[in-house]
Amino acid sequence: MPQLRKDPITFEWVIIAGERKERPHDFQKIWDNGELPPFDPKCPFCPGNEHLTPTEIFAIRDGQASPNWLVRVVPNKFPALRIEGSTERFGKGMFDYMDGVGAHEVIIETPIHNARFSTLPVEQVKKVLLAYRERILDLKNDIRFVYILVFRNEGKEAGASLRHPHSQLIALPFIPHEVVLEIEGMKRYHSFRERCPFCDMVKEELSFGERIVRESDNFLAIEPFASKYPFETLILPKRHHPSFADESEQLLEEFAFFLRDILYRLDKALQNPPYNYTLHNIPLRNCSPDGFHWHLEIIPRISTPAGFELGSGIYINTVPPEEAARILREVKD
Amino acid sequence: MPQLRKDPITFEWVIIAGERKERPHDFQKIWDNGELPPFDPKCPFCPGNEHLTPTEIFAIRDGQASPNWLVRVVPNKFPALRIEGSTERFGKGMFDYMDGVGAHEVIIETPIHNARFSTLPVEQVKKVLLAYRERILDLKNDIRFVYILVFRNEGKEAGASLRHPHSQLIALPFIPHEVVLEIEGMKRYHSFRERCPFCDMVKEELSFGERIVRESDNFLAIEPFASKYPFETLILPKRHHPSFADESEQLLEEFAFFLRDILYRLDKALQNPPYNYTLHNIPLRNCSPDGFHWHLEIIPRISTPAGFELGSGIYINTVPPEEAARILREVKD
Repeated sequence: MPQLRKDPITFEWVIIAGERKERPHDFQKIWDNGELPPFDPKCPFCPGNEHLTPTEIFAIRDGQASPNWLVRVVPNKFPALRIEGSTERFGKGMFDYMDGVGAHEVIIETPIHNARFSTLPVEQVKKVLLAYRERILDLKNDIRFVYILVFRNEGKEAGASLRHPHSQLIALPFIPHEVVLEIEGMKRYHSFRERCPFCDMVKEELSFGERIVRESDNFLAIEPFASKYPFETLILPKRHHPSFADESEQLLEEFAFFLRDILYRLDKALQNPPYNYTLHNIPLRNCSPDGFHWHLEIIPRISTPAGFELGSGIYINTVPPEEAARILREVKD
Repeated sequence: MPQLRKDPITFEWVIIAGERKERPHDFQKIWDNGELPPFDPKCPFCPGNEHLTPTEIFAIRDGQASPNWLVRVVPNKFPALRIEGSTERFGKGMFDYMDGVGAHEVIIETPIHNARFSTLPVEQVKKVLLAYRERILDLKNDIRFVYILVFRNEGKEAGASLRHPHSQLIALPFIPHEVVLEIEGMKRYHSFRERCPFCDMVKEELSFGERIVRESDNFLAIEPFASKYPFETLILPKRHHPSFADESEQLLEEFAFFLRDILYRLDKALQNPPYNYTLHNIPLRNCSPDGFHWHLEIIPRISTPAGFELGSGIYINTVPPEEAARILREVKD
């Protein structure tokens, strides 16, 4: 029997329909794992091709005065939003709009063209996370920006247009809908129980056990109760930490180890699937520390949302999260 | 300069970024237009293979006592929700769930395996619409159901698992999120302006003109001001019609002609793209006729939402709706 489950924070319903996974055409292997060279002379993110990107914003180098970067942040050459402009709003009849103002940056995660994120050294993943933190803290100084979304697209089916390992961030002049849903859900939960729902979820999942992928001193990875997508994975701090950008270097090192391990498990279990991850951090302004609990969501792109999903907002997930968690727990090195 | 536009009904923001469409890898032709035979002996939807589907629920035949069906409705063999069960809700710790109860039906649109919906005779499209109406009116008698979503998946990239032309419907024990967003947006608009926002949108778009694809006596097709997807198309009755299921046969005939024409334009302009359409109808119960205005949304699946879209809920649309409307208006037979 399929089950309808309600997300405890956003109140979105999801259909968990394990039997349906046997139907024709599900889970086709659409991803391409073609071999890549460690250096591609045409890749704008490869060392030596720095002139092919817009001017560097930030970098972590192997020595203070060294020309060799290890992580490099540049503006996106094809930005979805532009840094110039004001946040003034306009109306035309019943329609409202504003300039597409924002920042759109690329975090080049390694000089090595054919590296896979899940097998980078932990020290390198930590540098990527330090670059996220640095860019969030810097962009926060621009009073036009209210939210920064850090995200990663791996593979063509996940929307990546370049193969060289990279993340991106977009700074926005308002809080995006998906985060608003979470903030409103947290408020609703808080007004009823006077506790943070993410903190409660950590405790509940630790007591149930069946949806846990892995636990460390400070982090927990679970397959959420109302997962929209097969193998959707949530990583969150076990204690109430509102802001990613305020985390210490030490905690980010633990997170680097943890994130890399979870991505490695997904890569092993699903054979290097295309995926997205997004970092949901506290808004830059006007949100009390009670009102948010940062987390990172990983979505493997191995199923195709169809008309029902687009028209209803209800997702049909053919892999129950309890089964996905078991598979990920059992991955061996 | 990209533009941020706000959906006047749901308040969702969209990024309209026309310049970005030139970046690498956008608009790959991923769809498959492989030739099909008019009859496939293995297809469960082809005439003569009726035993391969669950028991017929409804059919339109070429004569009252004829064995030859023209449109046929059967239960989905791999249903996302099942007809047996109650709508009782359960809790386990902080998590809420219920049985996956609902109806999941397939509307087989023609006996001809290799037909394309946009080139079916108008008379045949009308029969499909009459079948939608019939099934909605019948399922409304089941008091467990609160909403029925009719949808159509065309092409593998739009989630279709069978090539034989068909639509589907799912009856749900609650109103799905996407429709709730619209209903709440309509209420908000109504409380401010005391008018239906869809009725206002018809008037505004008729006066602007630039986003109109086509107009008939009773229908209007537009590329919405805040289109999330390239060539997203909205068809709606020009006057305040809350309920698709209450439309007359005469109006459905006009709608059949109109819908077929719009799909034909999309097929010509985008070379038979994969697409979804969904029919947003008034909830079966507890919604006043003021509170809804039925419409049909068509979404060509020619772009790939990436991490930013999934994590923010903000879509980046690289084809401004004014440009898409012009292209669709100019399609010749």
